[in-house]
Amino acid sequence: MTRGRLITLEGGEGAGKSTVLDALHARLRERGIDVLVTREPGGTGLGEAIRALVLDPAYADLCPESELLLMFAARAQLVRERILPALDSGQWVLSDRFTDASHAYQGGGRGQPGARIDAIAEWAAPVMPDLTLLLDLPVEQGLARAGSRGEADRIERENLGFFERVRAVYRERAAREPSRFRRIDASRSIEAVRAAALAELDAFLAENAP
Amino acid sequence: MTRGRLITLEGGEGAGKSTVLDALHARLRERGIDVLVTREPGGTGLGEAIRALVLDPAYADLCPESELLLMFAARAQLVRERILPALDSGQWVLSDRFTDASHAYQGGGRGQPGARIDAIAEWAAPVMPDLTLLLDLPVEQGLARAGSRGEADRIERENLGFFERVRAVYRERAAREPSRFRRIDASRSIEAVRAAALAELDAFLAENAP
Repeated sequence: MTRGRLITLEGGEGAGKSTVLDALHARLRERGIDVLVTREPGGTGLGEAIRALVLDPAYADLCPESELLLMFAARAQLVRERILPALDSGQWVLSDRFTDASHAYQGGGRGQPGARIDAIAEWAAPVMPDLTLLLDLPVEQGLARAGSRGEADRIERENLGFFERVRAVYRERAAREPSRFRRIDASRSIEAVRAAALAELDAFLAENAP
Repeated sequence: MTRGRLITLEGGEGAGKSTVLDALHARLRERGIDVLVTREPGGTGLGEAIRALVLDPAYADLCPESELLLMFAARAQLVRERILPALDSGQWVLSDRFTDASHAYQGGGRGQPGARIDAIAEWAAPVMPDLTLLLDLPVEQGLARAGSRGEADRIERENLGFFERVRAVYRERAAREPSRFRRIDASRSIEAVRAAALAELDAFLAENAP
């Protein structure tokens, strides 16, 4: 039994993650790959309850330390309850966000030190993605797209500077780990973004198909 | 303005914490000390929502790592939103459980390493109690008392071995920090336990009264 692969999708608001996630999922199924799709924060009963807390605008004064701890509480459960068992059984996992998102949002956005995030990740989420697609686009363009979606959650209500810091950390991480990350220019049409993401997946499959 | 004092009350199931907490609170008020009473996990809007998650028997498969992270998520918010502002304004704080409880329950009970707990506490809950009263009694006696209280929460459903490990860590910590901890024999009648706790508080007040 070959161990499965973990593919994560990262990016800011309005980058087209949902559309791309669906396309990646469909392509994997076409190739006969059994895939578990999940999202963060969430993906388990506990994780979805934590997601509701973290995104609730009622907790506007949630401190950055608690936000970081809650994100990893959801992730630790997701890793143990779903991701590791799936990978161990040969299933692939496609996750809408993972640990990189904590570096971007709780690190870049909220100022939590990267070393602190790494130290928690080491025992709370001890699994590294095999491939990470970063949908990257200018913050104002992303927010303009996301803005048409109805009421903003607690994190979507942040200011431009917050999202600029999120983007900067995502780009730094992608530049630092070129063998794992593929940065996709998400400022283009959603069709072009989807095609670029699928091309990256195809290249990955050429080397990793089970 | 003198900074306030943080007094914490620790102990296992059925040790008489609620009764003792009320007695300590009443004594502090009699002395004219303005006191904030709080509890863990909980004590803030977010913290009470986390408490509901952590104690919910529906999450029987909550992993130890998530449990630890959730406890500190609640604590980090409690420290910043309530405890530190109160102490800074000269108010005293009386807390039903604090960081020692994570060492006892998530460390001793669930096997999370003490160094991991210390590392989180350093940034998530950077405040040390001035006085900690440990209500200590044999596990079986405590559980027999607690058992008469109605439906058990997720943690109360643990087995005897779990609570023995909780007690052992509490006792070790009390022995290692004798200047902060006062261990009270809680196997006696509740009146005797209350009197012993008040005597310890009085001794503390003799040296620390504002």
